[in-house]
Amino acid sequence: MLRSCTAGLHSLWALRGGREGVPRLSTDLQPAPRLFSAEKVIHKDWALPNPSWSKDLKLLFDQFMKKCEDGSWKRLPSYQHRSTQISEDFKTYFRDKPLNNENKVSQIFQLFTRGFEDGLGFEYVIFSNNDEKRTVCLFQGGPYLQGVPGFLHGGAMATMIDTALGSCATIPGGAIMTANLNINFKRPVPLCSVVVINSQLDKLEGRKLFLSCNVRSVDEKTLYSEAT
Amino acid sequence: MLRSCTAGLHSLWALRGGREGVPRLSTDLQPAPRLFSAEKVIHKDWALPNPSWSKDLKLLFDQFMKKCEDGSWKRLPSYQHRSTQISEDFKTYFRDKPLNNENKVSQIFQLFTRGFEDGLGFEYVIFSNNDEKRTVCLFQGGPYLQGVPGFLHGGAMATMIDTALGSCATIPGGAIMTANLNINFKRPVPLCSVVVINSQLDKLEGRKLFLSCNVRSVDEKTLYSEAT
Repeated sequence: MLRSCTAGLHSLWALRGGREGVPRLSTDLQPAPRLFSAEKVIHKDWALPNPSWSKDLKLLFDQFMKKCEDGSWKRLPSYQHRSTQISEDFKTYFRDKPLNNENKVSQIFQLFTRGFEDGLGFEYVIFSNNDEKRTVCLFQGGPYLQGVPGFLHGGAMATMIDTALGSCATIPGGAIMTANLNINFKRPVPLCSVVVINSQLDKLEGRKLFLSCNVRSVDEKTLYSEAT
Repeated sequence: MLRSCTAGLHSLWALRGGREGVPRLSTDLQPAPRLFSAEKVIHKDWALPNPSWSKDLKLLFDQFMKKCEDGSWKRLPSYQHRSTQISEDFKTYFRDKPLNNENKVSQIFQLFTRGFEDGLGFEYVIFSNNDEKRTVCLFQGGPYLQGVPGFLHGGAMATMIDTALGSCATIPGGAIMTANLNINFKRPVPLCSVVVINSQLDKLEGRKLFLSCNVRSVDEKTLYSEAT
């Protein structure tokens, strides 16, 4: 039943990339024409404190907001919904389902990292320093992100690393897409703890961007992961 | 508010690993003693068809269930909740929150890949062939896993790759933990499409396991990702 929705999905972004074998989303992957709706939803900025944020996360957030005052750093806003055209079949399937978010089919398509209720999933905010070509992501992973009991799922950590590196990759401008992600997991991250993901743009070769990041505890004493 | 829950989280698994710098979860990471509850929840097996499964996914599932009849292949069951002891602070924070799943605090801790309603997130089933030391994961990614509009988030794909490789790594026995994950993303995966993740155990060196996998379309013509 869901299968036909694949054909109905519509790419709205153009790729910065264009590596061999990687389609330019807006042209190469042609969706079928049978589309239903593309309602625009008013967006809430999720990269702001909510009651589930721990003291550590709030404290770090305030510190970086201070750094934003002289313009050297910038907080990146973050939205839950991205307008994506959906097929009629898909709409029909989900019409009568008891969904979380007011059961609005037009709101079903959500950015992976923003589809959880406050505190349960990915709580994060990213700050960017364009001059230094780096970003800092403050991240608190909630109980829905569990892998080994008590600790973040490796995939959840990979997701935030991909997101953090992705935000850093947009500094030179243009949309991007991950071609390779290489992560060394040094230690498991306890659920609900706060970690800091420092990302930087190392090199730019034509259309290829090379980035690296590390994931550390708030006191910087524990290195959880490194990635490129 | 959530911070103290970190201390209250309790590791229940022992690591197969023990690399330098990687703690053995059951011993090195000592949780604080202030624990509240560890209620056991009756589990539903999520690795079975539901109405959100596409025709492709159901068809492949049936094919592999047939292969299971002679015992060469085995379907791996999958559960949403994992009992994790939680702190009193955390329980207090979530007590009055309008959560999805009947608002049971004891059920808040969920396996990352099973925390979504039917069809919205990760729909998958893994089959294992112990003699051939390989697994096949059939995966349909729902609209909550969106990255670039219309396509799976790279982190969602990384999560399923980690899960698929992890299931293969358990074939020799014992609990495991990912030390390195290296993914080459060849093409973006359309939302709601079905992909097949073939994983195999390449090498076993002491406690280290070396695995690889590829992610392909149902007709095997499109290679989406490769990973080790």
